[in-house]
Amino acid sequence: MAQANDLVDKLRAGDTRALARAVSLVENAAPESTDLLSACFPYAGKALRVGVTGAPGAGKSTLVDRLARMWREADSKVGVIAVDPTSPFTGGALLGDRIRMQHQQGDDGLYVRSMATRGSLGGLAGTTADVTQVIEASGRDIILIETVGVGQDEVEIVRLADVTVVVLIPGMGDDVQSLKAGIMEIADVFAVNKADRDGADRVEKEIRAMQSLGTPNAWVAPVVKTVGTTGEGISDLFAAVNQRRQWLAEDGRLEARRKVWWKQRMEGMLRQALMDQARAHGISDTEFEAHAERVAAGSEDPYKLIPALVAQAFAAPGRIR
Amino acid sequence: MAQANDLVDKLRAGDTRALARAVSLVENAAPESTDLLSACFPYAGKALRVGVTGAPGAGKSTLVDRLARMWREADSKVGVIAVDPTSPFTGGALLGDRIRMQHQQGDDGLYVRSMATRGSLGGLAGTTADVTQVIEASGRDIILIETVGVGQDEVEIVRLADVTVVVLIPGMGDDVQSLKAGIMEIADVFAVNKADRDGADRVEKEIRAMQSLGTPNAWVAPVVKTVGTTGEGISDLFAAVNQRRQWLAEDGRLEARRKVWWKQRMEGMLRQALMDQARAHGISDTEFEAHAERVAAGSEDPYKLIPALVAQAFAAPGRIR
Repeated sequence: MAQANDLVDKLRAGDTRALARAVSLVENAAPESTDLLSACFPYAGKALRVGVTGAPGAGKSTLVDRLARMWREADSKVGVIAVDPTSPFTGGALLGDRIRMQHQQGDDGLYVRSMATRGSLGGLAGTTADVTQVIEASGRDIILIETVGVGQDEVEIVRLADVTVVVLIPGMGDDVQSLKAGIMEIADVFAVNKADRDGADRVEKEIRAMQSLGTPNAWVAPVVKTVGTTGEGISDLFAAVNQRRQWLAEDGRLEARRKVWWKQRMEGMLRQALMDQARAHGISDTEFEAHAERVAAGSEDPYKLIPALVAQAFAAPGRIR
Repeated sequence: MAQANDLVDKLRAGDTRALARAVSLVENAAPESTDLLSACFPYAGKALRVGVTGAPGAGKSTLVDRLARMWREADSKVGVIAVDPTSPFTGGALLGDRIRMQHQQGDDGLYVRSMATRGSLGGLAGTTADVTQVIEASGRDIILIETVGVGQDEVEIVRLADVTVVVLIPGMGDDVQSLKAGIMEIADVFAVNKADRDGADRVEKEIRAMQSLGTPNAWVAPVVKTVGTTGEGISDLFAAVNQRRQWLAEDGRLEARRKVWWKQRMEGMLRQALMDQARAHGISDTEFEAHAERVAAGSEDPYKLIPALVAQAFAAPGRIR
């Protein structure tokens, strides 16, 4: 704990290398990560979390880059987490590296971190949440979280965000309709990027049409046309995000949102901790492997086995008290 | 248990309504579902599981339909599970209904079931696995599992399959490259559907190029051009799937695969069961909600709370033995 406090003191004092080390420890779920997160907790949760998501090739990185600059110009301290669920096959984490190279040199007010899933299933949203806590503790006002794609996994990451910007582009073809269903639910702001291309108006019109079909909501997501490469429309996008921020500040909306989020996150943490305990008390990996072999061969019934294993774990004499 | 055995006897005797009822009970995680799955277990695991996945609009349903017919002509009994992760926003489960309408009337050898996620996060792969067990117990030789998209969630569903067919189409645009990374790992067979359109050759060439970059694998996924609507190329696709089946039958490959799968599945089951136990022993939903509120307000440290809750659950006097 003393070590964790020491590292957190350093990263709070603006030591970027200490921050990078703390993030790595948390990302790799190192033994000291719980102490570290606990030491960060009092200083976290104060930043506005902005998620930016959309299909590959929509130009998210450029928009994130532009938004980060605008906040820096307004003297806000910014953290960027680029989550790249690219497979181990391609190496992953290309996105973040690109931003890092463009920027960061000489500006301690901007911290960029890229994370790859490395094929891990399920845990990415949790890791992103933990990394966010650490970066927030370093005194950031804004956390930008960039994720590729709009699958279930991304939806879970995006829950972490207070404001979610969904980036669409013209010319996505016939499939835009089917993609949009999932998108509508998570979008707080739409950016129609590459708006200098043909069809930007049509994309906007389609979004409006979908919105008119949905259940009436207190917040109707604004649609902003942008050209990330030239910077056109970025100040409108910036304004839309800040408008949402304002809205969240009213009537305890942000607090309510954060509470719902923490409940889900804590359930995930509980699930993981229970599993760790069970593993430590009676269900070793070797035993589990042997069970799996018997189940696959049809000689053991998993639907009877699992309840028995749980009973065994809970009854283990070596359990923690 | 007696009731469960009774229902399983009926569905094994070819009672389609009993099968549909059993699937519903399992899909909704009804109290009797564990007994039901346990009663199904001795009769499950014997079918070849064929996953069909790809982007929305790729024509997966039509291909599944065609393949199902070919197996029926070969006198194999077929089950189709159409998993539609469409959001509650659109109502979902359109796919399966479409197939159901085209087919099924009067043919007990083909059972089609559509499943929607209904916004449930994470649990879909498990539910699909359980439903597969029940349908297999009804004496199917082939289970076709159709999923939309190729996100993390779909990858998890697809793990269930012994053979995974990835459906691509010409004209997917610039993003095909980034999509393909994830696809390459799960594809055992590629179907380039709508191959009467321009660009089918290019898609094939791109797949080959990606394959040549990858780590050498004992199985190189064949690429088959199809036109689902006319039936062109379907017998080639059918042959490719059967070729993979042959390959899996050699050197204990299928057994090894199933073992790995069961280990993961059992971990998921264990995680869920532990959570249920914890909830029953000391961590009520109301308490959890109150904790979440305090954590969100910053007055309680979740990284200290969760270990304490786990200790409490394991030490609870009312635990099962």
